[in-house]
Amino acid sequence: MKKRIITLGEVMLRLSTPGHQRFINSTSFDAVYGGAEANVAVSLANWGYSVAHVSALPSHEIGQAAKNSLQFAGVDTSYIPTCSGRMGTYFLENGAMQRGSKIIYDRFDSVFVKYDFSGLDWEQIFAGADWFHWTGITPAVSATAAAVCKQAVQAASKLGIKISADINYRRNLWQYGKSPMEIMPELIKPSHLIIAGLTDFENCMGIQTERYEEACQAAKTVCPNLAYVSTTTRKSISASENRLKGKLWNTKSMLKSKAYSMTHLVDRIGGGDAFMAGLIYGLLTRGDEEAIEFATAASVLKHSIPGDANFVAVEEVDHLIKGENIGKLLR
Amino acid sequence: MKKRIITLGEVMLRLSTPGHQRFINSTSFDAVYGGAEANVAVSLANWGYSVAHVSALPSHEIGQAAKNSLQFAGVDTSYIPTCSGRMGTYFLENGAMQRGSKIIYDRFDSVFVKYDFSGLDWEQIFAGADWFHWTGITPAVSATAAAVCKQAVQAASKLGIKISADINYRRNLWQYGKSPMEIMPELIKPSHLIIAGLTDFENCMGIQTERYEEACQAAKTVCPNLAYVSTTTRKSISASENRLKGKLWNTKSMLKSKAYSMTHLVDRIGGGDAFMAGLIYGLLTRGDEEAIEFATAASVLKHSIPGDANFVAVEEVDHLIKGENIGKLLR
Amino acid sequence: MKKRIITLGEVMLRLSTPGHQRFINSTSFDAVYGGAEANVAVSLANWGYSVAHVSALPSHEIGQAAKNSLQFAGVDTSYIPTCSGRMGTYFLENGAMQRGSKIIYDRFDSVFVKYDFSGLDWEQIFAGADWFHWTGITPAVSATAAAVCKQAVQAASKLGIKISADINYRRNLWQYGKSPMEIMPELIKPSHLIIAGLTDFENCMGIQTERYEEACQAAKTVCPNLAYVSTTTRKSISASENRLKGKLWNTKSMLKSKAYSMTHLVDRIGGGDAFMAGLIYGLLTRGDEEAIEFATAASVLKHSIPGDANFVAVEEVDHLIKGENIGKLLR
Amino acid sequence: MKKRIITLGEVMLRLSTPGHQRFINSTSFDAVYGGAEANVAVSLANWGYSVAHVSALPSHEIGQAAKNSLQFAGVDTSYIPTCSGRMGTYFLENGAMQRGSKIIYDRFDSVFVKYDFSGLDWEQIFAGADWFHWTGITPAVSATAAAVCKQAVQAASKLGIKISADINYRRNLWQYGKSPMEIMPELIKPSHLIIAGLTDFENCMGIQTERYEEACQAAKTVCPNLAYVSTTTRKSISASENRLKGKLWNTKSMLKSKAYSMTHLVDRIGGGDAFMAGLIYGLLTRGDEEAIEFATAASVLKHSIPGDANFVAVEEVDHLIKGENIGKLLR
Amino acid sequence: MKKRIITLGEVMLRLSTPGHQRFINSTSFDAVYGGAEANVAVSLANWGYSVAHVSALPSHEIGQAAKNSLQFAGVDTSYIPTCSGRMGTYFLENGAMQRGSKIIYDRFDSVFVKYDFSGLDWEQIFAGADWFHWTGITPAVSATAAAVCKQAVQAASKLGIKISADINYRRNLWQYGKSPMEIMPELIKPSHLIIAGLTDFENCMGIQTERYEEACQAAKTVCPNLAYVSTTTRKSISASENRLKGKLWNTKSMLKSKAYSMTHLVDRIGGGDAFMAGLIYGLLTRGDEEAIEFATAASVLKHSIPGDANFVAVEEVDHLIKGENIGKLLR
Amino acid sequence: MKKRIITLGEVMLRLSTPGHQRFINSTSFDAVYGGAEANVAVSLANWGYSVAHVSALPSHEIGQAAKNSLQFAGVDTSYIPTCSGRMGTYFLENGAMQRGSKIIYDRFDSVFVKYDFSGLDWEQIFAGADWFHWTGITPAVSATAAAVCKQAVQAASKLGIKISADINYRRNLWQYGKSPMEIMPELIKPSHLIIAGLTDFENCMGIQTERYEEACQAAKTVCPNLAYVSTTTRKSISASENRLKGKLWNTKSMLKSKAYSMTHLVDRIGGGDAFMAGLIYGLLTRGDEEAIEFATAASVLKHSIPGDANFVAVEEVDHLIKGENIGKLLR
Repeated sequence: MKKRIITLGEVMLRLSTPGHQRFINSTSFDAVYGGAEANVAVSLANWGYSVAHVSALPSHEIGQAAKNSLQFAGVDTSYIPTCSGRMGTYFLENGAMQRGSKIIYDRFDSVFVKYDFSGLDWEQIFAGADWFHWTGITPAVSATAAAVCKQAVQAASKLGIKISADINYRRNLWQYGKSPMEIMPELIKPSHLIIAGLTDFENCMGIQTERYEEACQAAKTVCPNLAYVSTTTRKSISASENRLKGKLWNTKSMLKSKAYSMTHLVDRIGGGDAFMAGLIYGLLTRGDEEAIEFATAASVLKHSIPGDANFVAVEEVDHLIKGENIGKLLR
Repeated sequence: MKKRIITLGEVMLRLSTPGHQRFINSTSFDAVYGGAEANVAVSLANWGYSVAHVSALPSHEIGQAAKNSLQFAGVDTSYIPTCSGRMGTYFLENGAMQRGSKIIYDRFDSVFVKYDFSGLDWEQIFAGADWFHWTGITPAVSATAAAVCKQAVQAASKLGIKISADINYRRNLWQYGKSPMEIMPELIKPSHLIIAGLTDFENCMGIQTERYEEACQAAKTVCPNLAYVSTTTRKSISASENRLKGKLWNTKSMLKSKAYSMTHLVDRIGGGDAFMAGLIYGLLTRGDEEAIEFATAASVLKHSIPGDANFVAVEEVDHLIKGENIGKLLR
Repeated sequence: MKKRIITLGEVMLRLSTPGHQRFINSTSFDAVYGGAEANVAVSLANWGYSVAHVSALPSHEIGQAAKNSLQFAGVDTSYIPTCSGRMGTYFLENGAMQRGSKIIYDRFDSVFVKYDFSGLDWEQIFAGADWFHWTGITPAVSATAAAVCKQAVQAASKLGIKISADINYRRNLWQYGKSPMEIMPELIKPSHLIIAGLTDFENCMGIQTERYEEACQAAKTVCPNLAYVSTTTRKSISASENRLKGKLWNTKSMLKSKAYSMTHLVDRIGGGDAFMAGLIYGLLTRGDEEAIEFATAASVLKHSIPGDANFVAVEEVDHLIKGENIGKLLR
Repeated sequence: MKKRIITLGEVMLRLSTPGHQRFINSTSFDAVYGGAEANVAVSLANWGYSVAHVSALPSHEIGQAAKNSLQFAGVDTSYIPTCSGRMGTYFLENGAMQRGSKIIYDRFDSVFVKYDFSGLDWEQIFAGADWFHWTGITPAVSATAAAVCKQAVQAASKLGIKISADINYRRNLWQYGKSPMEIMPELIKPSHLIIAGLTDFENCMGIQTERYEEACQAAKTVCPNLAYVSTTTRKSISASENRLKGKLWNTKSMLKSKAYSMTHLVDRIGGGDAFMAGLIYGLLTRGDEEAIEFATAASVLKHSIPGDANFVAVEEVDHLIKGENIGKLLR
Repeated sequence: MKKRIITLGEVMLRLSTPGHQRFINSTSFDAVYGGAEANVAVSLANWGYSVAHVSALPSHEIGQAAKNSLQFAGVDTSYIPTCSGRMGTYFLENGAMQRGSKIIYDRFDSVFVKYDFSGLDWEQIFAGADWFHWTGITPAVSATAAAVCKQAVQAASKLGIKISADINYRRNLWQYGKSPMEIMPELIKPSHLIIAGLTDFENCMGIQTERYEEACQAAKTVCPNLAYVSTTTRKSISASENRLKGKLWNTKSMLKSKAYSMTHLVDRIGGGDAFMAGLIYGLLTRGDEEAIEFATAASVLKHSIPGDANFVAVEEVDHLIKGENIGKLLR
Repeated sequence: MKKRIITLGEVMLRLSTPGHQRFINSTSFDAVYGGAEANVAVSLANWGYSVAHVSALPSHEIGQAAKNSLQFAGVDTSYIPTCSGRMGTYFLENGAMQRGSKIIYDRFDSVFVKYDFSGLDWEQIFAGADWFHWTGITPAVSATAAAVCKQAVQAASKLGIKISADINYRRNLWQYGKSPMEIMPELIKPSHLIIAGLTDFENCMGIQTERYEEACQAAKTVCPNLAYVSTTTRKSISASENRLKGKLWNTKSMLKSKAYSMTHLVDRIGGGDAFMAGLIYGLLTRGDEEAIEFATAASVLKHSIPGDANFVAVEEVDHLIKGENIGKLLR
């Protein structure tokens, strides 16, 4: 019986310049649909889980395209209402060498941001679910989005469903009159797994420290169900070369994945979401050490794939973990 | 000495599906920048006039691209302030056969819609100007846009500059609490030239009649400077085949252009703006009969060109009017 | 409650030359996945039905892409086993003017052709189903494919599910040692709806006549459940211009749709499948006359869309039937 | 034993705007290699003849690409010397609707124009040859090109090889100090077949008449070997729709082909060369009436194919002549 | 007088995903034609040799395209019969970073695999030939292919033509009931040059050793004419970075080429064939040490070129060997 | 008040192969317009200066496209006369790995080379100007080009405008009968800033030394206004990896920029022009040390951008100088 996973969050239209073209010279944009949580949903569905993504989309054809693109990956879109309004959009310029990639967001006032989700029946949505995943982007964009996040977290918590929260603090987003500290602590509290860096801990949980393990322990004191805290460390040599490693605190010790040198980067958008999905997969199927290795290796492979979605097979991730066939031609 | 023409209006990013692809299947969008008034500006600059376009754009790179794209055509962009905010955008699906083209607008809350233009010095902008062109889209999108339109019209009127108004009534746009009849009559009043169909007359001037010439005469009674009223008649056989003719009322008689069968249509967006620009060009350089022929022929040629902008030479329009070299290979 | 429809048939990779390029000069091929029955499934899922497609695909990534592409449209792929083997493929050269389009099939020995479907539990597949659709292509390709077709038809018949059969006789396909007359009559017998032309009647049912209605009546004598027979008449002026009309015999009279002139054709592949899907939709929701109009209009619109799949909305088909907005720009 | 045909003329790089893009907006150009005579060579090689093309090309990689592209079609390039210098080039804008296609030539001072061909051993080149084809473009571009043309014509004449001359008078080309009447009559004199319209007859042979057959008879009086004169009549409805018919005077009567309406035109460059090749093929294999039908039908099909080269099969031409399968999908 | 070289083997259609796209997301495939032996033929023809490739192709247009693509490079295709059947095909996903490239073969039951080559007149084919090249792929695919390989090897041997054999053992291919050891030793025996790695020696010659030079000496004992054994060593850092060196055993000593670091890899398919062609070129024109350097450098350059074929000039290879102008802009 | 800068030089059409395609396999070319001096103009206009470029272009549409493309960047094109003739063109093959990029020039006999500029009114052009920039390419291509260069230099000198000269000696260009030493010293003499390497000093100023600072001092002795000499040092590891640093001699000391490793190079054309523009910007706005850092960093960023033009913001250059956000994703 397949495990069932529920994700919640906005799906956006990503418009990226082809090749390494700058915005100013682009006469076309490549289009894919994604979002931090939807990307996690796609990864997990691709690995065989039964995944439903909860969101809201415009009722026009671009909204339909976004919905179908989740279905492509096998994600259940039954809980995505549509209504009149605009699609959250962002423009991506793919960097190269020392020139970093750039995102211009155009997501305010989207259907998701304004949607009144109060009619959702979370008990029905969570029927048979094993895991719920959300990120700090959702409560950041509007009061209604924060409200649905709260509803979902409370329902999941009540039903004993494991919750993962990718804190993902982004200062620019919090513009509807609330500060993260007014909203986030309550949402984070019932988490089983938190993805957070030091900035996230400070801004969304009020935990101030430079020592990561200390932050994890502080989080544990306020989150009774907390079993795992995780994060990645990314070093940017250039837009074309990054280094990546993951760590996972399991309340007992701090596990570290192999460090990967990622050179000849193809597309780094969705790299964090690939890590998140990999970690959920790993924790659902393997031991803690294997889980953090799986998460990091899944993220590394994502960087070689155009688009937000991490269409890699479990076997490919495992080969990378074992150092087998790295970069080899498979016939 | 080149004549100087001022235009006012929003510049938008147009994202169109390649070929005859539907929205739902598009993995990329072709991008050009345009707008009803900016398209007129581009045509006129391409024909050698000194043209400045007044607008407002986001300060990010997409806004810069829009500005540069006007400069490409030789349009003066000195009077386009930029500020933080979003770019008005629309998605275009290019129809074929019986399937019409579709536009999904995403233009609300753009920088242009929200911009406070009150600081513009219209006396400076109009220095040396011979003609001012605006459309009914601008006063439709917001109170601030209606205000700048009024300022411009009043300043032009005061300075004795000829004004052309493309009424272009679009019901969906008027959403900021004013009705067209509260705003438009005053703006239209000082016009030298009006482009309007029967629906425009009814909704923006309160003129109700099914007889076009009668409507023109009624308009003349409320617009003391009115010298010309014009419109086009388009018959849609299919998305790939339209028929087009233009007419021009010069207070004395109703002049009609040749009727053109346009089959194998390439891109009809901007066809009306090409007509408008052609009419201004014609009226500035030729007699009335020649003017309406020029306007219609310029519009016909636009339908053969991808994108909003009508990059055709005066000679090409003249050849079409004369029926010379129609469709022939020129070496 | 959504109606549930089951379809059965091979899904192929279609590789088509871009634009009007000939095979000999093509340096790339556009790729979509489709098949006569899968195209029907996609149309019906796009119109909101619960549709499951039964097939078999290679277990490699190209097979996965085919499967996901059905999911994109909302088709349930739970009943598509995968195994080692090759993907049925065809190459398409898109004609123009007097030069017709060409297909080079490369479908023999595909996974679908060789798959042993005997393990399928048709009672489970048909649970809650209202309609079953198959075509004469399936029993033509192999004994195992003919066997699964028979199983399905018998199970549907037993469960009282309406069956539609698109006879689609293709002489080149019958290469596994059986003639159509040995296989088809039994399969066709329990049909509720048959799509057939005179050649189909002759080769697959042994009905020889030049009068279409007579053939329908003859079919009725051997198919006790037969309620409808339908076909389209296509006249090819050129590869870019066809004329199309549909007819539907409802045992009482021969209903005829409007005749459409389709000029500026974009892609005619899947036009017949769009008709089929439109007919099923029409018969499930409307009267007979409306059904044949819906089927023909849906097929016409398909010819304007690149790819096999007919992603049109019900409203678009209805507009075409009513002659509203033909080819007009919709904002 | 395959017949052997020799052609002589410049091969140019053609740079065309994609789709219906205008020059001013093109950010890329599609590239093919061709030329009036080389296009004839390609057609004939594609139909199975042993064809060698004589020319001169730059020794750089673009020259090599031109050479290989002839080899692609099976043309023998052994008699194409290379040297330092530039490639003859032209830019093509593909028209649509009433907007005609445009060519900007950039061919002066090319390697072919300047090459000293005096070292060519025409006896060797013509060994085993049955036919020699040249056009009036070659003697128009330079004294050296006129000289090689003369050498070739004289050698062919001496060896009793049939000569076809496509007069193709282009006023813009004659810029090296000679007039056509100083050069052309002598070159045309030994022809077996001439392609010429009234303008060609007047400017290159001094034959002034408005009656085509009269011109043919006048040509016969000065060309003792003349067996055939041919031409096409093209009517341009638009860039997307032309009408075409061919005629052939065989000294006894004026044969006329069927007239074809060519709508949805894809690429008309090379249409005349396709006719020329078709006529040579027809005269080598069939009766006169069949020959002119073959030539015209071959030319019609060329208009549906992107690029200069007419990659159509003999069977396809024959189907068109017989009106079989016009525009039909062939499986 | 140009040397004449004969090659034998299947030509396949390669369909590769654009950029670094995965199979699952590809909406088009780039198409080139190649094969291990045909790639060698193309390289050698490009370097000025008279090369004929022996194969069999489908008689449809895709087969014709494959044939013409060999002609493009100057390869003689006179000995490529065509018949009804399918084209051997493979799908290529171009890897990046740690994600390796992938090939999905779809080559069974192709025309080449099934063709009865017994009618070929090898004496005629080998007339004037200096070298014959084959690979272990051919005898692996079918009994008929093994038979033609045997015929060719025997005829070449009898005529004293030098034979090169690229052993290229691929376990997946041997599916027609014979083991390599039943077929290969006899074919390899008359070789002048063998390309083999340790796995090849073991599986196709029964030579088991971990020491390469020992394997070479063992091969020499069973191949009386053996003058050279060669191989490359490739280290895969990632799909984007490999290291390559070549070695050549000339019965006296083991010569080693420079080792190259290949980073920013463009396309590694055909790298081994480029080495093979380079080695033949080197051995035909230079000393042994120069030959192995030429082969390795030619292979390195291939990795920078999209497609199977190694279109590099001899001068370019020589510059790389000398370390001149590495990566410099040449004007 | 914006500073005003005048540049002089040819604008060419650059036709580059897509991706890493070789010339021989390219079926299309990407097109941009640029030139050493125009690229400097574009950079400076992009950074907010008032820049006019002086040149000559063909009066056809390709010439118009070149002109508009300068206008796109905000460059004033009022001083670009047009006349009949050809466009200077070059073909670019983008290298990869050890295979260097290649340029095939086709620029002789262009409109610019032949244009008689004697009618230009340099006093008018230089009205209000602060800086004049020219390169050694202009006097190299023809006597008329050398003449206009001399006129401009003399006028600028007389008006006290600062002059920068990028010596840019290219041996292949000097073909009109003059040697660099006959022309260049007089042109260089009034310079404020010279870009030159040792070869430039030797060939264009007769300064022979291996020590760069010594050369600078020698230049100072003959150029009374000389305030700066500058150059870059580029080390080519491969076509995909270069190292770059800049140096600036300010008559007192030799300042050196940071050295940059540029790996994953996108497009190196225009890298030197980006340096030149950066240096002018730096010297106009900053101290000497900051200027050489700005110039080098601007050049580095250019290498990441497709096309000749360096569309980077001042802030981006400054970030690179400070080592901030190198390659990071900016949201």
